[in-house]
Amino acid sequence: MTDPVLTYALSREAHLIEDLKTLVSFPSVGADPAMAQGMEDARQFIEARITAMGFQKSQRLTPLDGSGQPALYAERMDAPGKPTVLVYAHYDVQPADPVEKWHTPPFDATEVDGRLFGRGISDDKAPMMIALDTLAAFIAVEERLPVNIKLLIEGEEETGSPSLTSILETHRDLLAADAVLSADGARWRPDLVALNVGSRGNTGFEMRVQTATQDLHSGRYGGIVANPLHVMSRLIASLHDADGHIAAAGFYDGVTEPTAAERAEIAAIPDNDKNTFDAIHASPHGEAGFSTLERLWVRPTLDVNGMWGGYTGAGSKTVIPNEAFAKITMRLVPGQVPQRAKEAVVAHLHAHLPDYATLEIYGERGQGGAYAVPPEHPLLAAATAALHKTSGQIPLKVRIGASLPLTEIVHRVLGMDTVMFSFSLSDEKFHAPNEFFRLSSIKDGLAAWVQIMREIALIDPVSFSPFRRE
Amino acid sequence: MTDPVLTYALSREAHLIEDLKTLVSFPSVGADPAMAQGMEDARQFIEARITAMGFQKSQRLTPLDGSGQPALYAERMDAPGKPTVLVYAHYDVQPADPVEKWHTPPFDATEVDGRLFGRGISDDKAPMMIALDTLAAFIAVEERLPVNIKLLIEGEEETGSPSLTSILETHRDLLAADAVLSADGARWRPDLVALNVGSRGNTGFEMRVQTATQDLHSGRYGGIVANPLHVMSRLIASLHDADGHIAAAGFYDGVTEPTAAERAEIAAIPDNDKNTFDAIHASPHGEAGFSTLERLWVRPTLDVNGMWGGYTGAGSKTVIPNEAFAKITMRLVPGQVPQRAKEAVVAHLHAHLPDYATLEIYGERGQGGAYAVPPEHPLLAAATAALHKTSGQIPLKVRIGASLPLTEIVHRVLGMDTVMFSFSLSDEKFHAPNEFFRLSSIKDGLAAWVQIMREIALIDPVSFSPFRRE
Repeated sequence: MTDPVLTYALSREAHLIEDLKTLVSFPSVGADPAMAQGMEDARQFIEARITAMGFQKSQRLTPLDGSGQPALYAERMDAPGKPTVLVYAHYDVQPADPVEKWHTPPFDATEVDGRLFGRGISDDKAPMMIALDTLAAFIAVEERLPVNIKLLIEGEEETGSPSLTSILETHRDLLAADAVLSADGARWRPDLVALNVGSRGNTGFEMRVQTATQDLHSGRYGGIVANPLHVMSRLIASLHDADGHIAAAGFYDGVTEPTAAERAEIAAIPDNDKNTFDAIHASPHGEAGFSTLERLWVRPTLDVNGMWGGYTGAGSKTVIPNEAFAKITMRLVPGQVPQRAKEAVVAHLHAHLPDYATLEIYGERGQGGAYAVPPEHPLLAAATAALHKTSGQIPLKVRIGASLPLTEIVHRVLGMDTVMFSFSLSDEKFHAPNEFFRLSSIKDGLAAWVQIMREIALIDPVSFSPFRRE
Repeated sequence: MTDPVLTYALSREAHLIEDLKTLVSFPSVGADPAMAQGMEDARQFIEARITAMGFQKSQRLTPLDGSGQPALYAERMDAPGKPTVLVYAHYDVQPADPVEKWHTPPFDATEVDGRLFGRGISDDKAPMMIALDTLAAFIAVEERLPVNIKLLIEGEEETGSPSLTSILETHRDLLAADAVLSADGARWRPDLVALNVGSRGNTGFEMRVQTATQDLHSGRYGGIVANPLHVMSRLIASLHDADGHIAAAGFYDGVTEPTAAERAEIAAIPDNDKNTFDAIHASPHGEAGFSTLERLWVRPTLDVNGMWGGYTGAGSKTVIPNEAFAKITMRLVPGQVPQRAKEAVVAHLHAHLPDYATLEIYGERGQGGAYAVPPEHPLLAAATAALHKTSGQIPLKVRIGASLPLTEIVHRVLGMDTVMFSFSLSDEKFHAPNEFFRLSSIKDGLAAWVQIMREIALIDPVSFSPFRRE
């Protein structure tokens, strides 16, 4: 028997799509000051929707200094004795550039073969509307929500959430909840029912190797002075051993080695390596002793993102440059402290630097740690149950190799865990031309969101306590 | 008792300086088509001077296809039974850019503190005028030259002598001589009387390492694919061993190891290392077991002149690039075959290439071998005697670490050896703003050129035979 709330929500699907098209028509590109009106139109549209469906205390949250794009906040707290969940989404979108590569107008949502194309539709406007329409359906059918809900709809996700930490610190009490349920954060693969339970952290720096104060001619100096490109090459080569392990002493300090159970869980995921590597004409390559998914999800990595020095124009120039540059970033896993991992690599570079060269480290950045939902977290259990009941499959636990600042920031500032419950899919070209959203995901999403509300309502709020840090 | 020819030549010094100023006023920049008139004016001025002083058969030599800047040729063959010497110089100059860095007008020779400033004055207009005025003085005083002289004054030296091989091949009989005496090729250090007896060859190529067909995001691929910048770094690092030897098997094939006598000769040269390295704030660094001058003169080297890949702009981009590039050149010593040395390095790179990357070699260039005057060559003995008698010092035998295409091309095409007998000095900023020539070098140069003509006249032409390959 279908849940009456879901029946109602599904009956409103055409309205949801119309609302979604309206929302896409507002070019809410936070990075572009010329699109400030698009940001404001999106905010007002969402605020009107939230208020109309019966949320109270709608307000805009900004950092104390008043800068940045405000986040939208609203709450409906009429489920005494039930858990309180902070539902997260964001209303800002990526720029549409390069516009000429779009087959449909980026800010005029267009349906083609069961897919709705438009900038920001998959990231994160449709997933947000699914969450909101679910909550609206509960209020319409039952005149109340099954759990207490706080909404936090950010306006700076696509520009790196520069104000989020400040907003959380400023509105600590207002935002307090048992856990965060995010309508952002894509599902992994269209062929799998999965829950994302972790992401990697990141850190990085730039470096400059110098061997002289001017570029030199190889006819006059070739063989008698050090070449900084050779020095740089040896330094970079020294960062990994022959097995692909990162050679910097202390880099792996604190790394949580995957347990046998976790490895079994990962090994159970249907192999997609051939598709992954064939698509980019690359060979699998990485740390010895780990599978592709282990390398991507539970192992830290180090990559040189850029390296340069000397003459890079057309033809030949017999120059011995006096300096060489590299940009390095790392992906980190739970247990690693970003600053310490970076310091281990910098110390390794200094230890391997020959005495005829100098090394400058600068441009340090990215101090976000990795994040993993505790396996026994009640919200994760609720999400698992909801997906199982609505899809018929037990969701796989997956991770992502990238970094999700939200999860790490919320955990660090407010001590709350986050479960990703988005119904976008990772192939839907967010951040690229021709972003789309599968219309079929709306039904799947509404069903899962109705069900997860039911599941959360069954949880004794006390069971969140072990995971909360006030 | 001063040689009457030298007395005459010195009496004409003011005329020489006036001629030199006129010649500098013609902007004979071969690389710049807008300066074609400067090239033609220089040619006509030199042709008029050569004809007026009594040379016959003045003509312009071009490659068979008529392209390029003609070389000027003239001869005076009225010393039967005496050697025939091909005197080389060039009339083209480097561009004056950056013009704003000149303190005097580059094409208006200006005297400051005993130095005459102007583009091309040291390389090679003043050294050429010293040679020509010497020959003119012999004809004026003795009505004949002491040896047979052929003049070859090139117009493409500063643009890499692209037509020289073709000109030599086309005019093989016309240019045949016992040896070449070059008025080009700078003296090494102002504080030393020296003869340059060798130069290094060069070769090179560019390389591209590829690991995928597109740039990848380190969040989605970090740890599971190879990074071409890491591969490139390991390849470059593998090219030298810990002692600075080039690690490519076969690279040193044919290298003539310096004899104990040669090492002693080099060791006897007053040490200038502190000045050399202090000026560029670098430390001495090179192949173990060799001194600075040995590293520079008698050992082959390999340098990466440029290397690049990935994101090189401001800030951070978490990209794993799909390709990396490097430009490599080598300096070679006598005994090495450029093509074979290059092939040894390329084979080493392929042997060290991991199976998850591809390597493309392209842009191969520079096939000039090293050159060394045979130590027992009669023209070298004549030059040594001339410098000894006019300076009072026994000239040191020195080499240069750079490449001199002329010497190698003349030897390869016409089988003739070359002795460098220029009176420019290596600190006179040729190829840079504020090029100058020391006026005191005119007297030194005239004396040495008069004397070397006398010395050559004493040589039995048969003694050149062991060194000539027709």
